[in-house]
Amino acid sequence: MRTSRLEAFSDGVFAIAGTLLVLELRVPADTTELSSALVRLWPAYAAYLVSFLTIGIIWVNHHTLLEHCKRVDRRFLYLNLLLLIAVGIVPFPTALVGQYILSADGATAALVVYGLGALLIAVAFTGVFLYATNDHRLVGDKVEARRIRWEGRLFPIGLAAYTLGVALAFVAPVASLAVYGLTALFYALPLLPLPTRVGGH
Amino acid sequence: MRTSRLEAFSDGVFAIAGTLLVLELRVPADTTELSSALVRLWPAYAAYLVSFLTIGIIWVNHHTLLEHCKRVDRRFLYLNLLLLIAVGIVPFPTALVGQYILSADGATAALVVYGLGALLIAVAFTGVFLYATNDHRLVGDKVEARRIRWEGRLFPIGLAAYTLGVALAFVAPVASLAVYGLTALFYALPLLPLPTRVGGH
Amino acid sequence: MRTSRLEAFSDGVFAIAGTLLVLELRVPADTTELSSALVRLWPAYAAYLVSFLTIGIIWVNHHTLLEHCKRVDRRFLYLNLLLLIAVGIVPFPTALVGQYILSADGATAALVVYGLGALLIAVAFTGVFLYATNDHRLVGDKVEARRIRWEGRLFPIGLAAYTLGVALAFVAPVASLAVYGLTALFYALPLLPLPTRVGGH
Amino acid sequence: MRTSRLEAFSDGVFAIAGTLLVLELRVPADTTELSSALVRLWPAYAAYLVSFLTIGIIWVNHHTLLEHCKRVDRRFLYLNLLLLIAVGIVPFPTALVGQYILSADGATAALVVYGLGALLIAVAFTGVFLYATNDHRLVGDKVEARRIRWEGRLFPIGLAAYTLGVALAFVAPVASLAVYGLTALFYALPLLPLPTRVGGH
Repeated sequence: MRTSRLEAFSDGVFAIAGTLLVLELRVPADTTELSSALVRLWPAYAAYLVSFLTIGIIWVNHHTLLEHCKRVDRRFLYLNLLLLIAVGIVPFPTALVGQYILSADGATAALVVYGLGALLIAVAFTGVFLYATNDHRLVGDKVEARRIRWEGRLFPIGLAAYTLGVALAFVAPVASLAVYGLTALFYALPLLPLPTRVGGH
Repeated sequence: MRTSRLEAFSDGVFAIAGTLLVLELRVPADTTELSSALVRLWPAYAAYLVSFLTIGIIWVNHHTLLEHCKRVDRRFLYLNLLLLIAVGIVPFPTALVGQYILSADGATAALVVYGLGALLIAVAFTGVFLYATNDHRLVGDKVEARRIRWEGRLFPIGLAAYTLGVALAFVAPVASLAVYGLTALFYALPLLPLPTRVGGH
Repeated sequence: MRTSRLEAFSDGVFAIAGTLLVLELRVPADTTELSSALVRLWPAYAAYLVSFLTIGIIWVNHHTLLEHCKRVDRRFLYLNLLLLIAVGIVPFPTALVGQYILSADGATAALVVYGLGALLIAVAFTGVFLYATNDHRLVGDKVEARRIRWEGRLFPIGLAAYTLGVALAFVAPVASLAVYGLTALFYALPLLPLPTRVGGH
Repeated sequence: MRTSRLEAFSDGVFAIAGTLLVLELRVPADTTELSSALVRLWPAYAAYLVSFLTIGIIWVNHHTLLEHCKRVDRRFLYLNLLLLIAVGIVPFPTALVGQYILSADGATAALVVYGLGALLIAVAFTGVFLYATNDHRLVGDKVEARRIRWEGRLFPIGLAAYTLGVALAFVAPVASLAVYGLTALFYALPLLPLPTRVGGH
C-alpha cells in the first residue's frame, strides 16, 4: 500500500490538532482592563507554545520515519491510528493546563493529565517506530533499517522525561510544564537521520 | 477523472471530523475538585475513542477501496459526498453521548441518535462500495472487482450490529456504546484486501 | 505555477468549512426531554445539509475546472482566494439560519444573509471560471476552453436562483432555504464536462 | 528531504487557521432585532476579511518560495514550524479585534496584540525566506537564488507597516486595522517571481 495517502491523513490530523489549540485561547469576556486580562492569560500562551511545538516536532519525526518506509501494511495503519488518536487529544490537556496551572487545587491534576497525554503520544510513536523498523519490515533496506533503529535508541529518554514531568506536577506545576516543553525540544534533536534525497514535487 | 484530489478532500473531512471530536471534551468550569471532575468525564473519553476509531477505520476502508479504483465518475463523487456529510456529523452524536449517557432521561435518545449516525455512515459506505465495484465500473479489472465484492459480503453484519446498538439504547445505554465500539473493531478486520503494490510517494 | 498546491490549499478550506458546520449543531443544554429537544433542532440539521451540499458541489465544480487548467497565475490565485474567503464564511450564515429560521423576528435577516453568502460564492466562482477560460488563458487548448465556457453559460441561472432565495426570505423563510438547497442540486448537474483521463495517483 | 509533505502540513495549518476564523463570527444570542445586531458585528467581519487575506497572501508567498526550493533540511523545518505557530495564533487576535475595536478601553490592547501577531508572522516568514535563499542553500540555482533575494528586499516595508499599525493602535484603532489590511495587500504585490513552469499534477 502506498504511503502517500496515509501521510495526507496523518498530516491532516497533526495540522488540525495544532491549529485547534488556538481555540483554547479564550478572548476575555467584556472587561474594562483588557491589557491586564491578556497578560493574565500567559499560562494559556505557554501551553499553546509547548503543545504546538510537541505536535510539530512529532510531525517532523513521523515525516522522517515515513520517508524511510517503502510501504505500509494494515497493522501499521492501525498503530498509526492510535498515534493520531493520542495526538488529536492534545487540545484538551492544553486547555486544562492553560486554565488550571495557577490554581491551587487544579494544577496538579491538569499537569498529570497533560503528562499522561504526552506519554500516550510517545508510547504510540515508539510503537509505530519499532513496528516499522523491526526486522526491516517496512524499511526496504536492511542496513538502513538497523541504522534507523540505532538512532531511535534515545526514545526512552523522552519517555523518562515525561514521567518526570508527571512526578513534578505534584510539587511544582510550572516546572512540570517546562519539562514538557524541554522534552519537545529534545525530540527536535536529529534522532532520525534525514534522507538526503533531492527534490521532488 | 483522477482519484487523487477526491482523496485529498475526503482525507480532509475524515481528519477534521476526527480531530474536531476533541472539542467535545469540555474543560470543567472552575472547580475545586478538578481530579474528580475529570474522572466523571469518562463517558466523553469513551465516546471520543469509539468515534475516532470508527472514523479512522472507515478511512482505512475508504482508502483501500479507492486504491482499487482506476477512475471515478461524477455519480461516485456525489455518493462519496453523502458519505462525507455523514462522517462530518459524527462530532454531534459523540457530544450527545458524552453528555447524556449517564442521564436517566436522555441516554436512550443520545444513543439512538448515535446509532442512526453510524447507520448512515455504514449505508453510505456500502453505497459507495457497491457503486464502485458493480459491473467492474470503476475497478479496472473484472476479476479483481468480483473478488472485492466478495470481500464486502460481510458488510451487512456491521449494519445489523448498529441496529442492535440502537435497540440496546432503550434498555442498556452503556452496552449500546460498547456495541458501537465493537462494530468499529469489526470493520477493522481486513474485509477489503490491501493492494500489495510497492512504494510510491 | 503548478496547480497541485493550489488544490491542496483549496481542498483544505472546502473540507474544513464543510466539517466545521457540525459545530453549529449544539447539544441541547441539560434537559429532561432530550428527544423533543433534538427534534426541535431540525432547522439546524436542514441548514447543515444544504450548506454541506453547497460546499461539496462547489468543490466538485472547482475540482473539474482545475483539472482543465494547465497552469495558474498570480491573479488566478487571488481570485481563488476571494472564493475561499466566501466559502470559509458559510458556517456563520448556516448557524444563523439554524437558530433563527423559526423566529418571527429574525428569520428574514438570517435567510437574507445566507443568500448573500451564497451569492458571494457564486459570483466568486463565476469570476474564477471566466478568468480561467477567457481567451484560453489557463486552459491549454483553445477548443476545449471554448467548450468549457459554453458549458458555463448556465451559471446565471444559479445566480438568479440565489437572488430569488433572498427575495423569498421576506415572505417565506423556509421556502427560501428550500430554494438554496435546490440551487445546490442545480449546480450538481454536469455543467462542466469531466475529463475522461484515466488513472492517476 | 522532499518538500511535498512539508507543503501538505503547511497548507493544512494555513487553511485551517483561515477557516477557523469564522468561528469568531458569533451568532447573536436570541434577539428580536437580528438585522441591527448583525450590522453591529461589522468589526468582526472586517477582522475576518483582513486576517483571511493576510493568511491567504502569506500562503501564496510561502507557496512561491517553496516552488523555488529544491530540497529542505531540518533547520528549515523548524523555522517553518515557528512560522506555522505564528500563523496558527491568528484567530485569537482576530477575535480580540472583532470584539474590542469599538470599546473605549480595550481597542488599543486588541490592536497592539493583533499587530504583534502580524509582526511575528512577518519576522518568521522573513527568517524562512532568508534561510532558504542565503548562499543558495535550498534554492538549487545560484543566479535564481540571488534574484529571489533581491525581490525580497521590500520585506522590511511590510515590517515597518506593521510597526506603524501597532503605533496607530494607541490613537486610532480603526485606522490601525486598515493599515494591517493594506499591508496584506502590499504583500500581495508580486515580490517573489512566480516560476513559469507549466503543468503538473
